[in-house]
Amino acid sequence: MTRDHALALDAADALAPLRRLFDLPEGPGGPDGPDSHDDAAGGDGDGGLIYLDGNSLGMLPRATAARVAQVISQEWGRGLIGSWNSAGWMAQPQRIGDKIATLVGAGPGELVVADSTSVNLFKVLSAALAIQREDAPARRVIVSERSNFPTDLYIAQSLCRQHGCSLRLVDAPAEIPAALDADCAVLMLTQVNYRTGALHDMAALSAAAHAAGALALWDLAHSAGALPVALNADGADFAVGCGYKYLNGGPGAPAFAWVRPGLVDRFVQPLSGWLGHAAPFAFDPDYRPAVGIARYVCGTPPVLAMAALECGVDTLLAAANLGGMAALRAKSLALTRLFIEAVAQRCAGHGLLLVSPDDDARRGSQVCLSFAAHSVAGRANAAYAVVQALIARGVVGDFRAGDPASGLADILRFGVTPLTTRFVDVWDAVERLREVLASGQWREPRFNQRGAVT
Amino acid sequence: MTRDHALALDAADALAPLRRLFDLPEGPGGPDGPDSHDDAAGGDGDGGLIYLDGNSLGMLPRATAARVAQVISQEWGRGLIGSWNSAGWMAQPQRIGDKIATLVGAGPGELVVADSTSVNLFKVLSAALAIQREDAPARRVIVSERSNFPTDLYIAQSLCRQHGCSLRLVDAPAEIPAALDADCAVLMLTQVNYRTGALHDMAALSAAAHAAGALALWDLAHSAGALPVALNADGADFAVGCGYKYLNGGPGAPAFAWVRPGLVDRFVQPLSGWLGHAAPFAFDPDYRPAVGIARYVCGTPPVLAMAALECGVDTLLAAANLGGMAALRAKSLALTRLFIEAVAQRCAGHGLLLVSPDDDARRGSQVCLSFAAHSVAGRANAAYAVVQALIARGVVGDFRAGDPASGLADILRFGVTPLTTRFVDVWDAVERLREVLASGQWREPRFNQRGAVT
Repeated sequence: MTRDHALALDAADALAPLRRLFDLPEGPGGPDGPDSHDDAAGGDGDGGLIYLDGNSLGMLPRATAARVAQVISQEWGRGLIGSWNSAGWMAQPQRIGDKIATLVGAGPGELVVADSTSVNLFKVLSAALAIQREDAPARRVIVSERSNFPTDLYIAQSLCRQHGCSLRLVDAPAEIPAALDADCAVLMLTQVNYRTGALHDMAALSAAAHAAGALALWDLAHSAGALPVALNADGADFAVGCGYKYLNGGPGAPAFAWVRPGLVDRFVQPLSGWLGHAAPFAFDPDYRPAVGIARYVCGTPPVLAMAALECGVDTLLAAANLGGMAALRAKSLALTRLFIEAVAQRCAGHGLLLVSPDDDARRGSQVCLSFAAHSVAGRANAAYAVVQALIARGVVGDFRAGDPASGLADILRFGVTPLTTRFVDVWDAVERLREVLASGQWREPRFNQRGAVT
Repeated sequence: MTRDHALALDAADALAPLRRLFDLPEGPGGPDGPDSHDDAAGGDGDGGLIYLDGNSLGMLPRATAARVAQVISQEWGRGLIGSWNSAGWMAQPQRIGDKIATLVGAGPGELVVADSTSVNLFKVLSAALAIQREDAPARRVIVSERSNFPTDLYIAQSLCRQHGCSLRLVDAPAEIPAALDADCAVLMLTQVNYRTGALHDMAALSAAAHAAGALALWDLAHSAGALPVALNADGADFAVGCGYKYLNGGPGAPAFAWVRPGLVDRFVQPLSGWLGHAAPFAFDPDYRPAVGIARYVCGTPPVLAMAALECGVDTLLAAANLGGMAALRAKSLALTRLFIEAVAQRCAGHGLLLVSPDDDARRGSQVCLSFAAHSVAGRANAAYAVVQALIARGVVGDFRAGDPASGLADILRFGVTPLTTRFVDVWDAVERLREVLASGQWREPRFNQRGAVT
């Protein structure tokens, strides 16, 4: 396997043109120049940026700047308050929600864009717990993973206090079925684990939850826009997701919420703001929830951020004629497979362990590595320092701190986004990882200074 | 009193240059052209826009488009994930919060920008009820106004269900002191009533609440940026406010939350998202709240919307050397006084009633009118139709539906924003109101078609 192999994969990639939908940081030779990622001429990180962090913040779609400028200067500046109707601002939560619905196996009118993932999780988990309190009051346990993204655990902890419930955390996915017992009210999982990239089987686990009498709540932060999601077909009951990762909606983009149609009208979610009212402009002093998912809107939608999110969602919809999410998933798996094989071939002997599942069917759109405890690099801060040294060489991945108390290792995380990541990017990233490890560059003090925010 | 009187007031207005901080919709002759608001030449609404709806959506600051473009193209597009630190995104909630704090009588580090007003109200009202449950468990009543903005009532209704409390609504401000009895846990008011423009006495009512053993919670939606607010000096306990009205932050801009320093660490607000954690990037599976107001941040901040909000807040800070909020308040009162006097002089005989307080000390930055029930216009839909006819003539005010069950009349609402509204705008607006009433134009069917959203 050589770099030419990667270049050949790019040449044969039917999705390659989608990269042009993005405004990419330019390296020497421009963003798509033939030499932009070729560092054969030497130098340290001067060969163009290789961005493998789209699962933390998606890249900038080419359409976004002009669209947001239009919203600001024309719709806001000229149209002012009238734009709530004339420019369709009022319809944003549902219109963009319907677009996202097509990416996650939901129907029109079932999904709404609003607030942040954390806030939306509060809404849907409140609903799940309230429904169970009515249907099965003895069930007072939320089952999740200890390595679920912390904000999900924090929101669950808050609602556990309120509802007199408790959180039961498993250490490995294999332990989930046994945790679904007669006490379990809700199974709450992130479909792709942010630390490991492990992809849960939504259909099997939702069915297991239902068989045990529990409801199934899914956080799609690392799966919506990254791989095909089938909320209705796979039996999910509630879902939330993030706008700024694979949906390319921009930093802090609004999030989304979905509730199975049969459950959506059973409960009034507690963040009962005026735009979830059946008739917001009646200025009724009593809350009457809108029918359906519209009740999951709370306050006034953030119009500028919504417009940017819509541009991001449109980049995924642009793949519809090229095979859609199935084709994006196939490319994503080919990219992560290449990453895994290149690491095995080029970085052997440095103590790197594959944290993500090797099985394609169980891996999300990222490759996570750690250092074996006995390896040269297997000491505190090594993963952090290597990630920093890679960034200095133009390869942007992510460090995610472990939790020694839980036996979780520090993680080097590399996300691929099939809309923008090229096979040669993967090859070059692994090659730079090899250089960092072989040169010991990561041991330089400048790469070891962990700030408060990493 | 003549139009020349208004023009003379503009000529003498030291704050007039602040209008140039805004990107105003152009009428014939440009936004500041000498004839832009002079419709003496006749025509229907072609004399330039008179925008008296800044209390629903503030106008576009001149700096916003370029600043948001920079955030999108440079900070997001080029800096990508690194901009959370290098471009100061992480600090936005506190940095912008500190700026807003100077406008509302709060100290640095006491106020944070996050989420929507409704979501922030949920947080602070949860905190108030939880503190009272600990300090005075017998107190289970939230006192508010029946004409408070509905979203405040809806959020309170939700928390009443959760906490086993009830909402006690008064019909007139004068009834508030008597409602503060031994059952009262929280007095929750919007400082300036959205329907009437009546300004509550924050110091007196906070003191009355405290004397009765209750906590005082203030919604500053129609006061922050409109008039001097003194949260600490006036004894408020909790406050929330809106970014898209007088702060000119753009449609759906993020909102803010403030908690009296002595109370802020007493309670963990329930929307305990990861960015309110003491160490978000430690990825600790257990929630530990940040010290101080930082715990009122929930999810990832909406960076683009935050940047726009900061531009809006900066337009108010630009008045610091011109007398600041006190000078803006003086101009605002002069503008509403002119409006009231011009209506009395020019629109007599049409049955218009002044809903807003005539007393300057009790009036916010808006003038609200209704039609006397016995007047020619005193029938269903007249207020709506007149507002629509005014919009067609280039005067943008607001219609706010009444509630017949509560005896609340339909309202014509005219907000003035001292940064942009000129005295001649007020004069011309009243003149056009006179024309609409005198001509009976509002009776045309095209002005009577109320849609679902008004």
